[in-house]
Amino acid sequence: MIVLGIDSSSVSGSCAVLEDGVVLAQGLIHNGLTHSQTLLPLLADTLRQADRSVGLIDLIAVVNGPGSFTGLRIGLATVKGIAAVRHTPCIGISSLEAAAYGVRGFKGLLCPVMDARCGQVYNALFTSDGQTITRLCPDRALPLTQLQQQLAAQSLPVLLVGDGTQLCYQSFQSLLPAIQAAEGDRQYISGAAVAQLGILYAKQACNPAALQPVYLRLPQAQRELLKKQVDSK
Amino acid sequence: MIVLGIDSSSVSGSCAVLEDGVVLAQGLIHNGLTHSQTLLPLLADTLRQADRSVGLIDLIAVVNGPGSFTGLRIGLATVKGIAAVRHTPCIGISSLEAAAYGVRGFKGLLCPVMDARCGQVYNALFTSDGQTITRLCPDRALPLTQLQQQLAAQSLPVLLVGDGTQLCYQSFQSLLPAIQAAEGDRQYISGAAVAQLGILYAKQACNPAALQPVYLRLPQAQRELLKKQVDSK
Repeated sequence: MIVLGIDSSSVSGSCAVLEDGVVLAQGLIHNGLTHSQTLLPLLADTLRQADRSVGLIDLIAVVNGPGSFTGLRIGLATVKGIAAVRHTPCIGISSLEAAAYGVRGFKGLLCPVMDARCGQVYNALFTSDGQTITRLCPDRALPLTQLQQQLAAQSLPVLLVGDGTQLCYQSFQSLLPAIQAAEGDRQYISGAAVAQLGILYAKQACNPAALQPVYLRLPQAQRELLKKQVDSK
Repeated sequence: MIVLGIDSSSVSGSCAVLEDGVVLAQGLIHNGLTHSQTLLPLLADTLRQADRSVGLIDLIAVVNGPGSFTGLRIGLATVKGIAAVRHTPCIGISSLEAAAYGVRGFKGLLCPVMDARCGQVYNALFTSDGQTITRLCPDRALPLTQLQQQLAAQSLPVLLVGDGTQLCYQSFQSLLPAIQAAEGDRQYISGAAVAQLGILYAKQACNPAALQPVYLRLPQAQRELLKKQVDSK
């Protein structure tokens, strides 16, 4: 089975092609350009490097949130386009679970964090035994202060991962001196992790038209409109 | 500083472009084709994905052994070619140290293994505190049985990494049931790890012409010739 894994939910982007669970090729981009410029070339490069054509793909796993609203739309639109041609089954993967899955070698509490701006992060908590991860709570948006309180209340070693790693590490370090941060490129979501979760959850695959983003919060424009409407009452 | 990291020492290949220590782009290939077909296109793709031209590179870090004799020659020849144009400083990095560095998040004994055929592996041992690694012995080629004895004699948790991971895991598991194997794509050497070690050892950079492979053993043809000469005496 050939599986494509795609992430464009944050500042980095990644594609991977797996065959029978083995990574044939994987690309990671973190160059400051928008995913609308980089995602399709990255995908074409990765398929060529894997020596497999797009027509051979059996399943597409794509991060569908939470994360950058624009990034998620670019990823989902790209996947829907590719998948529509041959009705390739698709599956949406949580950015937070993919980030945690990529560092499952760490035994303890995995704390993926995506910068949600305004003093908030997208977060979920997982434990890992070094091989498999177990979800402890649903994906959520919460203030940094609240996450810090939750982490202070438990005893396992904690590893931060995801594009909010540095933000949280700097905020939490004084109160939680033992907290660890995934190193360098390990902070980013890898296409391989997305594809591997796609294989695990393959039974939940859907028609590409049914793929939906999971924003967790309203877009900023809608939040501001709501606030205006409340303030004007 | 822009650093290029390249590995073609085993069945997988990887390139990464780092700027000021941050990964701009990274590609990984494990498609069964020879590095002579895949390395230059992978390099070109990765530079384009990083949005940086080859003329901007300040340092090239390349795995110079131990590993596949042909793979090492392809990697070194490619790097010497690129570096010769602008006399770009180069540095040779141990495949085993790069493999260990990629999993430095694991606290314990890191045991990189590269399949050296004939019942042997290339190996070195490192400890990690989760952030930095400390070398315990030089790179060496040794029989699987001897490595198993050495691992049995120590008490830290052990993580296998490198293209000999499955070979060793299956051989050692009955005697060393607690031994762990790096997961999937984490077994492969990443261009980012090679580049990061290049930055650490930048003071040892040399002229591209001075780059030399480190084979650790004689090539098979020379070993067989020697054996014939000994046998005929």
